[in-house]
Amino acid sequence: MINQYFTERRSVRKFQKKEISQSLLENIITAAAKAPTCGNMQLYTVIATREESRKKELSAYHFNQPACGAPVLLTVCADFNRFTRWCNINNADAGYDNFLSFTSAVADAMIFAQQICTIAEMEGLGTCYLGTATYNAPEIASLLKLPEMVMPIACLAIGYPDEDGVETERLPLRAILHDEEYRSDSDADITELFRVKDEYPANQKFIEENGKENLAQVFAEVRYPRAMNEEFSAKLLKWLNATWYK
Amino acid sequence: MINQYFTERRSVRKFQKKEISQSLLENIITAAAKAPTCGNMQLYTVIATREESRKKELSAYHFNQPACGAPVLLTVCADFNRFTRWCNINNADAGYDNFLSFTSAVADAMIFAQQICTIAEMEGLGTCYLGTATYNAPEIASLLKLPEMVMPIACLAIGYPDEDGVETERLPLRAILHDEEYRSDSDADITELFRVKDEYPANQKFIEENGKENLAQVFAEVRYPRAMNEEFSAKLLKWLNATWYK
Repeated sequence: MINQYFTERRSVRKFQKKEISQSLLENIITAAAKAPTCGNMQLYTVIATREESRKKELSAYHFNQPACGAPVLLTVCADFNRFTRWCNINNADAGYDNFLSFTSAVADAMIFAQQICTIAEMEGLGTCYLGTATYNAPEIASLLKLPEMVMPIACLAIGYPDEDGVETERLPLRAILHDEEYRSDSDADITELFRVKDEYPANQKFIEENGKENLAQVFAEVRYPRAMNEEFSAKLLKWLNATWYK
Repeated sequence: MINQYFTERRSVRKFQKKEISQSLLENIITAAAKAPTCGNMQLYTVIATREESRKKELSAYHFNQPACGAPVLLTVCADFNRFTRWCNINNADAGYDNFLSFTSAVADAMIFAQQICTIAEMEGLGTCYLGTATYNAPEIASLLKLPEMVMPIACLAIGYPDEDGVETERLPLRAILHDEEYRSDSDADITELFRVKDEYPANQKFIEENGKENLAQVFAEVRYPRAMNEEFSAKLLKWLNATWYK
């Protein structure tokens, strides 16, 4: 039997005013660092933002999403700076200014981020990812004084929950688990896989509110439209090419 | 008190011959899909490899690491293909062929991968990441018949453990948790942060075995040398530029 926590967890966007003690935060981060890590290199750093004025600035870069009201914002960064400095100090040629190493650090940081999330939630805290850390990475890096080869990849809003969170629908297992080979689905198959999303009552409401024909148009034209993706993409790539790899 | 599992977990590289039942695997993946996901888009797919001949081929692309002997190899992929097809079918302009969207899918897939890892381990299974999924991504994609906009980002070896796993050292908390701003460390600070690694008995052995002066040189010149990183990096980037984004 899978632990009920995993099957029932929900993200939380509304938090009590209550602070998270420094010792609890430190215990969570210490435990999270026991997560698997690429070659035991620990290619991540987390910056805790609590100060009101800085939180306000950081929240603006996250488009003031509701979860920004949390007592702590944790910016999880892919970090090859610390490891590279250690190599340089030890007269070892650190060759991590390339795309592959960047990808490894991103993967490593996300394992760490998710471990923080799980441990915090199991401790009774609520969390919500702000998926926008990469949208304004240069501005966030400047605010948090990130050196080169350090990229904010995820931000976790974290605090004591002041709501149960909303249950959200998921694709059927068949959509995400493939046996031996990536299954080749027909258009009818894809439509069937997404039916649970298309028909989900809350999504029906989004379609209506946004005056669209269907849910896919809400995603592609309102929530994550091409022009916005391409604008932030160009900004991120330009910044990475200047601070991490060519 | 943090759940002891998190503070004591270890990766496992040696597995019993015992198979994982399909129902247990499905329960783990179903529960893992309740993890947070970017905009609830579920930008991931996992391919389960059990067939001996295919496992042998896949293992070769992972340099036949010891953990490849697991009964199941789970290749977790960042996947914007399924979502893009759904958009196309619904007459919505899917603008996800860019670097930002790629990064979002990678982050999403890693959250999912780590949730699989945690749930499986809490169920008494052993797991080990093969961090090499990106090294031979084009070959793995071909073997697993991945369509465009699907990249293998992590592989999890999973099975019933046949060893306790090895305890590995971690950097002090101060190295990875920064308060309000990225702390500016001196060279002496960095040296002090890495002391636990430099002095760890198993690492001392690596230095000796490889005839190096220090641990940093083992990493930078033996385990993850520049020339290797740059070669695999160029291959990965070229392949991504042909299959996902320019």
